[in-house]
Amino acid sequence: MTSKLIAIIAGVGPGTGASVARKFAKTYPVVLLARKPEHFESLADEIKKSGGKALGVSTDVSSQESLQNALAQIKKEFGNDVSAAAAIFNASGGFLRKPFLETDASVFEQSINVSALGGILFSQTFLPLLLKAKEAGSEHPPTLIFTGATASIKSSAQLASFSTGKWALRALSQSLAKEFGPQGVHVAHAIIDGVIDIPRTKEWLKDLGPEAKLSSDGIANDYWYLHTQPATNFTWELDTRPAVEKW
Amino acid sequence: MTSKLIAIIAGVGPGTGASVARKFAKTYPVVLLARKPEHFESLADEIKKSGGKALGVSTDVSSQESLQNALAQIKKEFGNDVSAAAAIFNASGGFLRKPFLETDASVFEQSINVSALGGILFSQTFLPLLLKAKEAGSEHPPTLIFTGATASIKSSAQLASFSTGKWALRALSQSLAKEFGPQGVHVAHAIIDGVIDIPRTKEWLKDLGPEAKLSSDGIANDYWYLHTQPATNFTWELDTRPAVEKW
Amino acid sequence: MTSKLIAIIAGVGPGTGASVARKFAKTYPVVLLARKPEHFESLADEIKKSGGKALGVSTDVSSQESLQNALAQIKKEFGNDVSAAAAIFNASGGFLRKPFLETDASVFEQSINVSALGGILFSQTFLPLLLKAKEAGSEHPPTLIFTGATASIKSSAQLASFSTGKWALRALSQSLAKEFGPQGVHVAHAIIDGVIDIPRTKEWLKDLGPEAKLSSDGIANDYWYLHTQPATNFTWELDTRPAVEKW
Amino acid sequence: MTSKLIAIIAGVGPGTGASVARKFAKTYPVVLLARKPEHFESLADEIKKSGGKALGVSTDVSSQESLQNALAQIKKEFGNDVSAAAAIFNASGGFLRKPFLETDASVFEQSINVSALGGILFSQTFLPLLLKAKEAGSEHPPTLIFTGATASIKSSAQLASFSTGKWALRALSQSLAKEFGPQGVHVAHAIIDGVIDIPRTKEWLKDLGPEAKLSSDGIANDYWYLHTQPATNFTWELDTRPAVEKW
Repeated sequence: MTSKLIAIIAGVGPGTGASVARKFAKTYPVVLLARKPEHFESLADEIKKSGGKALGVSTDVSSQESLQNALAQIKKEFGNDVSAAAAIFNASGGFLRKPFLETDASVFEQSINVSALGGILFSQTFLPLLLKAKEAGSEHPPTLIFTGATASIKSSAQLASFSTGKWALRALSQSLAKEFGPQGVHVAHAIIDGVIDIPRTKEWLKDLGPEAKLSSDGIANDYWYLHTQPATNFTWELDTRPAVEKW
Repeated sequence: MTSKLIAIIAGVGPGTGASVARKFAKTYPVVLLARKPEHFESLADEIKKSGGKALGVSTDVSSQESLQNALAQIKKEFGNDVSAAAAIFNASGGFLRKPFLETDASVFEQSINVSALGGILFSQTFLPLLLKAKEAGSEHPPTLIFTGATASIKSSAQLASFSTGKWALRALSQSLAKEFGPQGVHVAHAIIDGVIDIPRTKEWLKDLGPEAKLSSDGIANDYWYLHTQPATNFTWELDTRPAVEKW
Repeated sequence: MTSKLIAIIAGVGPGTGASVARKFAKTYPVVLLARKPEHFESLADEIKKSGGKALGVSTDVSSQESLQNALAQIKKEFGNDVSAAAAIFNASGGFLRKPFLETDASVFEQSINVSALGGILFSQTFLPLLLKAKEAGSEHPPTLIFTGATASIKSSAQLASFSTGKWALRALSQSLAKEFGPQGVHVAHAIIDGVIDIPRTKEWLKDLGPEAKLSSDGIANDYWYLHTQPATNFTWELDTRPAVEKW
Repeated sequence: MTSKLIAIIAGVGPGTGASVARKFAKTYPVVLLARKPEHFESLADEIKKSGGKALGVSTDVSSQESLQNALAQIKKEFGNDVSAAAAIFNASGGFLRKPFLETDASVFEQSINVSALGGILFSQTFLPLLLKAKEAGSEHPPTLIFTGATASIKSSAQLASFSTGKWALRALSQSLAKEFGPQGVHVAHAIIDGVIDIPRTKEWLKDLGPEAKLSSDGIANDYWYLHTQPATNFTWELDTRPAVEKW
């Protein structure tokens, strides 16, 4: 195929997003979406230095207008016939444990706007590019992956602002898997159950040994594996956690 | 106890909401919340004629301001020391089966705003009244019930606009059950799995016999039963469906 | 109807089984099944003294022969046209938390034989009597209820000998609900999540207050409520736990 | 490491078992367990001709004695210090859709004996060999995988003889994952949701196109992927189905 085949990652930060971007950048030009340029700038540079191609776009996934702008920049960069081998939604409302009646309504709104509405708008914006890749005969079935969490299947006390958005996102991914699977797009959902090993969590769980935290590169491997599954064997959901994790 | 103990029902229409209101009105003054007065006016009249007490308030559950106004009217009517024996969230975003990419983003927004954010704002507004009933020593543990659907646990193709809100609402109910159960408030979630027998569905499923549709009075009995469970035996979730339903 | 309508309870001990028997004995003659006579003798006496009717039969639910013997005794006592308003399977393999590799295979076998195979054999033996009650036009839909536990939906480390049987029993109840619901028999499953307040647990959880344990009478009320649901509103599953329970 | 590291596969037939055996035989000597020699003989020959190593042992996984005999033969072949990189339980009771009351109790017994008790006995027999591989420092964390089905999470009408065993097996896998994960053994469960493409199903689902059936080689890839996950990123469960599958 001659048209450009790219991977789009929303929610690139120091952990999963960056690892996923690095992994997919080995095969595809990657588009990095984050609200603030400082979240993708050094990563884009790093990918370019390693011989990959990366485009960062400041994007608010809870805004249709902002996503349309991202799409326009993608087309400007890669051409109007650009298609997507993968779109990965890794954005998330904030994780906040707080008594329900002391949590401002705006916290819930923001969480739902990013996790749930963001996932919807992201999917509406980029599914056409995934469908285009299918038509164009991409090597691997085009793949739409959503990053979930423990809170996607369990809703703890004082954590409703996070779990409501995450449950909605899981519902979205299941509905899309059923609608777009038959159209050749692989939609998947990953339950990330544990602390991810990033600079901010460096001192956490030290007493449980060096393998007590999730490797974000390991998560990226999982996402890449999902991407390479053939149309006869689509996984909708997998969980992933450290061997020593209690659950 | 001398203070007024009321029941608040959001989302009163011809089905579950009205039946629940009638059931709880036998014991408590009921507050009927709906966007449009025509949804609660005749019901309020009917309850009053049967010797009950009913207050209807035009309310948009997706608006904090509108809910605050409802609360103000409730206090005006029942006094500042009013407390709630039960608060029932029966509102819902619209049920729409439509290809994902042909569904306007506003449909998703509206669904999430009512089902998810609405449930959150409703709970934030009325949980203080439920906690007050607990303190005042109400006969039955004060009860907060959310109406779910098949789509609360299964997310079908082309139904994401409905299921995302419903999954988020179920997450909310589980988190609140865990947080407020130990404070004496019974939080429950009902999975209504089937067609409810209302005028609009009169001609549906006729070939399956007279019991193929859910009775909304039966659902009201379920809610009342949940309300009367003691603090030693709280049910968080039950499903309910016609005997002949395929599932 | 002129034929005898009875309730059969398997697994009567000091907790749920006895409370359920007392509750149903207010309306129906009850048949009490347990391996050892000492588990039902005093209960049968108590029910008879309260004006009820009770028949105890020593039964091993994991043995088809033993169940056939129970059926024969029931027919001898209540006539060949006896039918069952309710059959409640409350038997269970032993609860044992032990490292998997230190647990004798016989422990697993015994647990599966009682919880899973026992549930199957019990259902095969008494479903015909429930169907007969349906034909005869019993007031409430004939009801088959299975007692589950936390371990019916969560399988903890070192608890596989208990959870394997309980998951199998839940699968059985779901399949039977789908097959026999359309035939008018209400099949339900209750997730009992918490410690039940019985003499053996008297000293447990005392620091959490007087309502920290499940009331077995409360569970019996739940079962009776399930029994009285009409064919338009069958609940397959409900959970029940103390308000203060962490989950 | 100098000790022998093998992979053990129980339930080798024309589909998943054979594909898994071929896949793991590229790296490890494989042990093939099936009740009848004709199920593993040609496969063992094929693997040997491809340069691999294979030992077939007639084994009834529902019999502790038979499994002990298999273990003895394994030790005879590979030495007393043999350890296992992977143990895969792919055996299953028969799939039978039949009215519950017309199904002989022996069908349930047999299904539970193979799917549930078989999984337990298989795990008790070979977990020590997996733990030994962990101690010996195998490249990949030793892995115990259980093959599940749609019926592992959904229990349909008239299918209880199959689903009871499969739910019990899923419970087993979850409990073992929690107990042995912290000991370095990766325990996983795969939900195989769809028809597998084998000679017997050749004519099935033809109208849905060439990708309507699961590829057993694809499933083998999934199992191998699970095997290669590092201890920081263990997946307990994944589902897999054809893109066109309705679910």
